[in-house]
Amino acid sequence: MQTDTRLIKKENYNPKELNLHETLFCNANGYIGIRGTLEEGVPSDFPTMRGQYLAGAYEIIQMKQAESLCNLVEKKQTMLNICDTQTIHLSINGEDFLPSESGSVLDAERILDMERGFTERKTHWKSPSGRELMICIKRMTHFGVKELFTIEYELEALNFSGVAVFDSYHIAEVSNYSDPNDPRLADESPCYLKTKEKGFWEGTSYSLTEAKESGVKIAVVTDHIINSNSKSDSMVREEGGALITRIRVPIKKNEKVTLIKYSAFSDSIREKDPKAKARKVISEAMKRNIEELYCEQKNYLSSFFMKSQMEIDGDKELEDAVRFNMYQLLQAAPHDSYSGIAAKGLSGEGYEGHFFWDTEMYVVPFFLLTDPELAKNILSFRYATLSKAKENALLIGHKKGALYPWRTITGVECSGYFPSGTAAYHINGAIAYAVIQYYLTTADDIFLKEKGIEILIETARLWLDTGVYGRNGHFLIQEVTGPDEYTCMVNNNYYTNASAKHNLYYAARFYEQFKDAPEILALKKRIDISDSEIEDMKKAASEMYLPYDETYGINPQDDSFLDKPVWDLSATPKEDFPLLLHYHPLHLYRYQVCKQADTVLSHFLFPSLQSRETMEKSFRYYEKITTHDSSLSTCVFSMTASMLGLKKEALSYFGDSAKLDLMNRHENTKDGVHTANMGGCYMAIVNGFAGLRINEDGLSIDPYVPEGLNRYSFPFTYQGRDLKLTVEKKKIELELLNGDDLIFKYRGKNEEIGREKKWIQKL
Amino acid sequence: MQTDTRLIKKENYNPKELNLHETLFCNANGYIGIRGTLEEGVPSDFPTMRGQYLAGAYEIIQMKQAESLCNLVEKKQTMLNICDTQTIHLSINGEDFLPSESGSVLDAERILDMERGFTERKTHWKSPSGRELMICIKRMTHFGVKELFTIEYELEALNFSGVAVFDSYHIAEVSNYSDPNDPRLADESPCYLKTKEKGFWEGTSYSLTEAKESGVKIAVVTDHIINSNSKSDSMVREEGGALITRIRVPIKKNEKVTLIKYSAFSDSIREKDPKAKARKVISEAMKRNIEELYCEQKNYLSSFFMKSQMEIDGDKELEDAVRFNMYQLLQAAPHDSYSGIAAKGLSGEGYEGHFFWDTEMYVVPFFLLTDPELAKNILSFRYATLSKAKENALLIGHKKGALYPWRTITGVECSGYFPSGTAAYHINGAIAYAVIQYYLTTADDIFLKEKGIEILIETARLWLDTGVYGRNGHFLIQEVTGPDEYTCMVNNNYYTNASAKHNLYYAARFYEQFKDAPEILALKKRIDISDSEIEDMKKAASEMYLPYDETYGINPQDDSFLDKPVWDLSATPKEDFPLLLHYHPLHLYRYQVCKQADTVLSHFLFPSLQSRETMEKSFRYYEKITTHDSSLSTCVFSMTASMLGLKKEALSYFGDSAKLDLMNRHENTKDGVHTANMGGCYMAIVNGFAGLRINEDGLSIDPYVPEGLNRYSFPFTYQGRDLKLTVEKKKIELELLNGDDLIFKYRGKNEEIGREKKWIQKL
Repeated sequence: MQTDTRLIKKENYNPKELNLHETLFCNANGYIGIRGTLEEGVPSDFPTMRGQYLAGAYEIIQMKQAESLCNLVEKKQTMLNICDTQTIHLSINGEDFLPSESGSVLDAERILDMERGFTERKTHWKSPSGRELMICIKRMTHFGVKELFTIEYELEALNFSGVAVFDSYHIAEVSNYSDPNDPRLADESPCYLKTKEKGFWEGTSYSLTEAKESGVKIAVVTDHIINSNSKSDSMVREEGGALITRIRVPIKKNEKVTLIKYSAFSDSIREKDPKAKARKVISEAMKRNIEELYCEQKNYLSSFFMKSQMEIDGDKELEDAVRFNMYQLLQAAPHDSYSGIAAKGLSGEGYEGHFFWDTEMYVVPFFLLTDPELAKNILSFRYATLSKAKENALLIGHKKGALYPWRTITGVECSGYFPSGTAAYHINGAIAYAVIQYYLTTADDIFLKEKGIEILIETARLWLDTGVYGRNGHFLIQEVTGPDEYTCMVNNNYYTNASAKHNLYYAARFYEQFKDAPEILALKKRIDISDSEIEDMKKAASEMYLPYDETYGINPQDDSFLDKPVWDLSATPKEDFPLLLHYHPLHLYRYQVCKQADTVLSHFLFPSLQSRETMEKSFRYYEKITTHDSSLSTCVFSMTASMLGLKKEALSYFGDSAKLDLMNRHENTKDGVHTANMGGCYMAIVNGFAGLRINEDGLSIDPYVPEGLNRYSFPFTYQGRDLKLTVEKKKIELELLNGDDLIFKYRGKNEEIGREKKWIQKL
Repeated sequence: MQTDTRLIKKENYNPKELNLHETLFCNANGYIGIRGTLEEGVPSDFPTMRGQYLAGAYEIIQMKQAESLCNLVEKKQTMLNICDTQTIHLSINGEDFLPSESGSVLDAERILDMERGFTERKTHWKSPSGRELMICIKRMTHFGVKELFTIEYELEALNFSGVAVFDSYHIAEVSNYSDPNDPRLADESPCYLKTKEKGFWEGTSYSLTEAKESGVKIAVVTDHIINSNSKSDSMVREEGGALITRIRVPIKKNEKVTLIKYSAFSDSIREKDPKAKARKVISEAMKRNIEELYCEQKNYLSSFFMKSQMEIDGDKELEDAVRFNMYQLLQAAPHDSYSGIAAKGLSGEGYEGHFFWDTEMYVVPFFLLTDPELAKNILSFRYATLSKAKENALLIGHKKGALYPWRTITGVECSGYFPSGTAAYHINGAIAYAVIQYYLTTADDIFLKEKGIEILIETARLWLDTGVYGRNGHFLIQEVTGPDEYTCMVNNNYYTNASAKHNLYYAARFYEQFKDAPEILALKKRIDISDSEIEDMKKAASEMYLPYDETYGINPQDDSFLDKPVWDLSATPKEDFPLLLHYHPLHLYRYQVCKQADTVLSHFLFPSLQSRETMEKSFRYYEKITTHDSSLSTCVFSMTASMLGLKKEALSYFGDSAKLDLMNRHENTKDGVHTANMGGCYMAIVNGFAGLRINEDGLSIDPYVPEGLNRYSFPFTYQGRDLKLTVEKKKIELELLNGDDLIFKYRGKNEEIGREKKWIQKL
């Protein structure tokens, strides 16, 4: 149920739904992430992930290998639940507001207001003794003041007068979530934090904690404002380790009382004195009216949706879902270079808050076309961790180059099982691809010269160090794992080889293009780049082996893939999916069965490498053996189908994947949203349906309206220009809103557009 | 230093040497294993593995995977240190005999008497106060009474009179060994045992303990006899959990006092009431004179060496080393079907007491030719654990067949890292090979019908379920790991495919040969064998793909092996060996570099599959890239060289590998002896130098005397016959000592031999 820019759900305080709502109504701003938990708490047998997170704040935990082998990873990082400032207990004349366990909920709903950038929880509740309360709680993580989280807690007395008592908590030492039944979640649940300082100071509560192993320090400060007709009094106490601010205020029938709680967070990753920083944020915030903060938030979002809002005529639900996804991506996007985007954003602890390749491959494309500065932050994080990627390469035994970690928070590899972790060298390809796309889309040569080329060179070096020229003269890459983890440590994974080729080509290409720039001259010296090394890159790129099978006319996923028997998916019971949870890896590895798009993704990314016929045959081949056990799969099948003109298939694979989290399709949204899928759905529309591509030849489009829709349009940026594409059944319109005239390609032919006149193509 | 049948070493109570001597002077009889520790103990900073073991007695310990995947092993078994009945403290008038920490050792030696089957420790020691003692301690684990261990502790007062006090310990709860610096050893060191009962009873001490997780119960009973001129008195006490029997006896100058301690052990794996069993053993042993037990032991060994003693003229040290090895193999050999042979026998906790493939491939051949009943015990253990191997196969996802565990104590897989554990399917081939060789060598069709064929059929079924016919019509086996663990999860490992072919062929062959026997008719029904399944086995055997490379004219180790770069061994620093301890597996997997013989071993086992030329070229190829980081490697290179007529290489690879443990070549003999290497050295002589082979065509020989030797001879059994082969530079003699006339092959030509006349071939 959704109207306009709001996601609205009935709330019946059912434990299963609460868990899901914690994710859907999460507040985040790229720095803070706070799950949509209940201020008053839930009964102890309710599942809840009561989390507050800061982007990049982590703890280190032991991860012993069952059998020790040289240089295997035996420590991992995990995102940190930093504190609990969500908790506010309310009681009226000693009667606690506990809608999930007592009294009766007469009406309740949860609202995510994407226009105004806050969540609301409205509950009409009747207490056991018959008091009727209307509670409305607004929560906001502010996009302007990154460190700030606010709770505006409004109480209306509907049929009584009495004394309201708010106990507002500040718990410094909290535990991370654990669910021993789900192997995809970390199964340790200790408290990772120790308190360095805490107490009350000038009306505020404060704490400074430290993660025991990583040493990351977290500062938290809270303060309160109470708005009421009557005089309130407040007192503070420490109880069971928690700092509690108690505010007592009389309330009369039909009156309202509002408590505004401000929490500010800071960390030692970004700040020398995080406590001072958090105090400063609080004191500045307290000087401002909350309405002013709401107004700023609304303006920020108005500008964001101006750059990104997609209109879809013919499928309101899809339009709403896309808006929700964009909002979630924005909530996840880092605003500095101290973190990437986790698989679950800042909305939950699934995958332990690790960043994977999907950030670059599935999420960056969205920001590139809507807010390239955010894309730059993500890539800058990779640049900031390049030295760790070089150390990682050395650990594996490489003599040169950088190998980005398969999963990480700080840039250090955290994979426990290297065959489908560290061996996934294609993460290098994904990062390189994103750097290249960033430059092609923005023409930001400053970033390229200062950071991008160095990333490209170091990743390209790794391919040179990994691969070898085979006896047929081709450049081979062996013992790596492609995106499809149902086959591991294979030789010449088509996807990996194609992305390595791209990486090598552009490393040499951009290096030569900018070789006389002072930054590149300095880089050459600093990391010792020789002309012969650049020649080696060019040669390896051009001689890269891309497996092709004559019999089927397809690109096999790897050298031995087609020699394996085909898994009988039709004979596999439904409850056996996802296969990786039900079959021993050795068994999976012996079959032709794919968890997700692998060769099909590389055909979409690098279509010039193969004929249309090979790509279509491959598409037909792989669609029969792909389980889509990963949420990254169907969107890729959809966009590749669009590229190949297979419109029916494109629509069918697109399906309602955009609604994955909204409809809790994978039944694990409770652990956090699927950011990569959200980005992938955007791509399926923009790059798939609209055929928008950006490469060295510039921008090209080839749009169509899929069956069931009437029209869709979206704004995007391209090399400093703002454009808007509108696609109808009978007409395509491209509008240049800002920036210089542009030559672009439509179906391979050059077209021109200026600001004075829309480009219109009748169909 | 060794004379005849005794290994004699100076003992200077140096901590490093003590550790090694614990292994070299270990007492074992296939059931009990007791390391050669000092009765009086060592200072706490001395490294010591104070172990007493029972074959097959184990504990289960957690082995969490760093990343959980479906059906990965998360518990492992480990051999159990069952108790301490070795400890005897001696003091003279309050002065403790502690040669490793006080007083001075005037002379000391350790002796392993292989003719009489005991160890001796003789120490001439001067106490701090000047008392001179001559201590002589004999220890024996009895080959006739498996459960019995004796310590005969003789004290001679050289220059004093006084009172000797023996405190004889029985410690029921002991801990396993741990060395956190060595990844090849388990790094947990808790006490795995809890006491169910313990105390003193009719002059004996007794305990019944239970391993906490496995529930295996261990019963231990001790009793004592004192021989002296003076009257002794004894009292018992419990102190710090230990049961201590104190015997006080006056001793006069130049007199001797002897304490004989009997320990008996039993376990709940073999006995319903292990305590009763241990008591019975003790009471029967106490009735007999110790000399009678020594005499039986000597007779047993005399018969053993009669069947196995190798004479080597020209290299006394080698002859002695071979005798030592045979003795160690005998000490390790199980006398029932409740256990296999561990990598370290019963001499130490290295590799956690696990049984691997090397038992069948390297150790069984020795027993087959010398004491086939012992070989049958080993194979009967595999038969007894066949149902667990079938469960293991199901866990991996196989629909049929048995997959033997890569490492185990009870038949349950204990590999922590499956790519070089469970994926080593060739263990099935090794077990099948041993079953086939057992039958070809003994003609014991009862074993074959009752156990052997079932093993062959179930292992063959696994190959059928694993492999697949490729597009070229060949039968392919993918994602397995061969003996060379420096390449993992490869396709068509030559060794694995060749041994699967052999397995499949003989499963069908023997099944058809005996299909009308009642046992096989019953088996057919019980495990549902169809004629078409047998046809499938024959077809897979005959169509088995055996990779061959035209360019090099060799058999590549696997499909992609030759596409990888060759590891530069000459540029690898010496301290980087063994490579697996110094390089990440992903790095190792990317190179042509072998830990041990792989294809070369399969050429030795299955020479008929390839031309001599291909085998020699392969030998030359692999010798350049093999590090011999495994102790199983050089002996195989040696025997294959012998087979190919490369005598110089055969000798060079043989080297002094027979002395590996005696000379502590790998510097890890302290953890236990290398049983597989010991068997492999025997094979290098018998199957290598003497070219003795047994296959379906019968027995064949092709002996030569390697450079540096004058003559060698050895007895062996073949299908009920006792034979003796003597090889001189100019003459070969084969003598039939017992049994029917025989047709055998010499260099491919049939020859005949009867009991009346030696067969002599001039050279």
